[in-house]
Amino acid sequence: MSRFWNKKTGSLTPYVAGEQPLPGQKVIKLNTNENPYPPSPAIAEFLKTFDPALLRLYPEPSSRKLREALAEFYGVRPEQVFCGNGSDEVLAFSFQAFFETEDGANPLFIPDVSYSFYPVYAQLFGIPTEKIPLNEDFTIPVDAFCRPSGGVAIATPNAPTTLAMTQSDIRKILESQPDRLVLIDQAYAAFGEEFCTGLLEEHPNLLIIGTLSKSHSLAGLRVGFAIASEEIIEGLKRVRDSFNSYPVDTLALELATLAVRDRSWYEENRRRILKTRAESAAELSAMGWDVLDTSANFLFAKPAGISAGELYKKLRAAGILVRYFDKPRIREYLRISVGTGEEMNALLSAIENILKRRNEDSI
Amino acid sequence: MSRFWNKKTGSLTPYVAGEQPLPGQKVIKLNTNENPYPPSPAIAEFLKTFDPALLRLYPEPSSRKLREALAEFYGVRPEQVFCGNGSDEVLAFSFQAFFETEDGANPLFIPDVSYSFYPVYAQLFGIPTEKIPLNEDFTIPVDAFCRPSGGVAIATPNAPTTLAMTQSDIRKILESQPDRLVLIDQAYAAFGEEFCTGLLEEHPNLLIIGTLSKSHSLAGLRVGFAIASEEIIEGLKRVRDSFNSYPVDTLALELATLAVRDRSWYEENRRRILKTRAESAAELSAMGWDVLDTSANFLFAKPAGISAGELYKKLRAAGILVRYFDKPRIREYLRISVGTGEEMNALLSAIENILKRRNEDSI
Repeated sequence: MSRFWNKKTGSLTPYVAGEQPLPGQKVIKLNTNENPYPPSPAIAEFLKTFDPALLRLYPEPSSRKLREALAEFYGVRPEQVFCGNGSDEVLAFSFQAFFETEDGANPLFIPDVSYSFYPVYAQLFGIPTEKIPLNEDFTIPVDAFCRPSGGVAIATPNAPTTLAMTQSDIRKILESQPDRLVLIDQAYAAFGEEFCTGLLEEHPNLLIIGTLSKSHSLAGLRVGFAIASEEIIEGLKRVRDSFNSYPVDTLALELATLAVRDRSWYEENRRRILKTRAESAAELSAMGWDVLDTSANFLFAKPAGISAGELYKKLRAAGILVRYFDKPRIREYLRISVGTGEEMNALLSAIENILKRRNEDSI
Repeated sequence: MSRFWNKKTGSLTPYVAGEQPLPGQKVIKLNTNENPYPPSPAIAEFLKTFDPALLRLYPEPSSRKLREALAEFYGVRPEQVFCGNGSDEVLAFSFQAFFETEDGANPLFIPDVSYSFYPVYAQLFGIPTEKIPLNEDFTIPVDAFCRPSGGVAIATPNAPTTLAMTQSDIRKILESQPDRLVLIDQAYAAFGEEFCTGLLEEHPNLLIIGTLSKSHSLAGLRVGFAIASEEIIEGLKRVRDSFNSYPVDTLALELATLAVRDRSWYEENRRRILKTRAESAAELSAMGWDVLDTSANFLFAKPAGISAGELYKKLRAAGILVRYFDKPRIREYLRISVGTGEEMNALLSAIENILKRRNEDSI
């Protein structure tokens, strides 16, 4: 605690992102759910002829081009789209714009377990929050979210648990509290269920969050978005324009637009990831692991014959990063991003070696 | 007001940035203080061989490379530097991290007139604020800032008024309240006074804000930074990591680092802008304008023979954008970014034409 920080700053417990290897460090990186394939080749073409003199000017502030491309991709109008510096920024703006901060207000409902940034935003903006435990099988307890609240924030597919909600479950929550904002974070939806944009017309309280980080291999570019009614988008704009007039830079805007327009590249990478995901899940299951049904580009699974914590450390020592959360209910699981087929084979071999050496040591 | 917005969102009065011309619209743009010269040629070289596959991975989260380059440029240690998505984001994080929000707390002091985003941040984060009027000659009333406060935020050179404080005035404020954070926004300092990094060693309460938008022709890339004691930088990191783990994207990080390392390109552009600035100021003065002493890459000046509001509109109709603030004390002034020599000549001719036509009409 520093005498120069205000009280809020001293009280924060910031989010901890997955480890980033140092430059030059040779690892297989399956810990932050990046797409294993490069982004659209249209990006390399564009960069070859891009005139950097354009960077001397401020970006187009509304990200119009990108909103048009996203609107076409998701079947909505450009006025229903908002773009930000990664979906984390869009989530932060959403928490700040829509959920009540007053003592005694109905609390925001979030699932426990879910994306661990949600309680951090709630703390940053002083939003009273109720964490609703997942069911024993890690599904969302839908009825528990259908009570009077200060708003709802749910990820589907959920992270790190990979399970997706049905559209009718989402609809049920939307209908249960028509005057409260329901934020549905679909960061990983490209790999499973449809985006729930079909619910927008009947439900002006629905806010969908998306990102190009995983689906379009652009984690390094920081482009996230929201899709909602114009009334909700207007709320996001008010917060953005009170924070940073130009959150999406000129190159991010251009390159993200090209990536979204290249639908076949997206489909092809998606297809490859789903194939590898199915193969890897089957192999781990065959090794006795408990692998949850996944609608995401990662697996959430309980190892057999070794604790998750020990396996995490031994994989790390072997140059393979996966994500381990030493938290109640999930400390016996690992979150493993779906890499290329080659990377997943290396992972499976490493696991076999670790188990073999461990058995030899114990004889 | 929407039923889905919280109370705060409904109460916001967002910042309004200078107008951006539509794509394809041919204008002379002297309204948002962009650098008229392109960024370092090292950027074009880099982009030609950049491998977009790197964009599939998250950025290096601490912006290490760029912090090292900025540390060398400004003569500080990399641990004293923080990077963000434009200096607006760094300012927002600073307001959120350091200024007290409690009713009854001593208020934050900001000058009136100054960068109009400051009161917007104060409103967004609920910071009690006292606006301290500039002196009649638009200088900062230093003594008025040397009273017990909840913190201080001052731009030097000030915007839009172009006047800079002396280092000894800044020191006086720092010494007057050693337990309060003093934010010195030097967004435009490249064009006048030295950066006040020399005061850091003796004053752990000093936070300097900078940007590459103007000095390094990178407004389109959104890269801002803070320089301060490690204790203050740590406060900024806590807020950042509660908001967005990776605010600076991979390309912004790489290109900004190249620009900062190209010191001779920076010096040459700076020299050209100062030369044009002196010439334009002299010509406007010769036309009877009241031109304030400027330490920035823009002029703040009171037209002769026509009101500022009317001239603003007529210049706009003639395809020349300058900035006009219809606000108390400054509504008789225009803020004019220093463009290329050619652009400034076009401006001067347009002004002469407008005045000539106006005189003819009135005969």
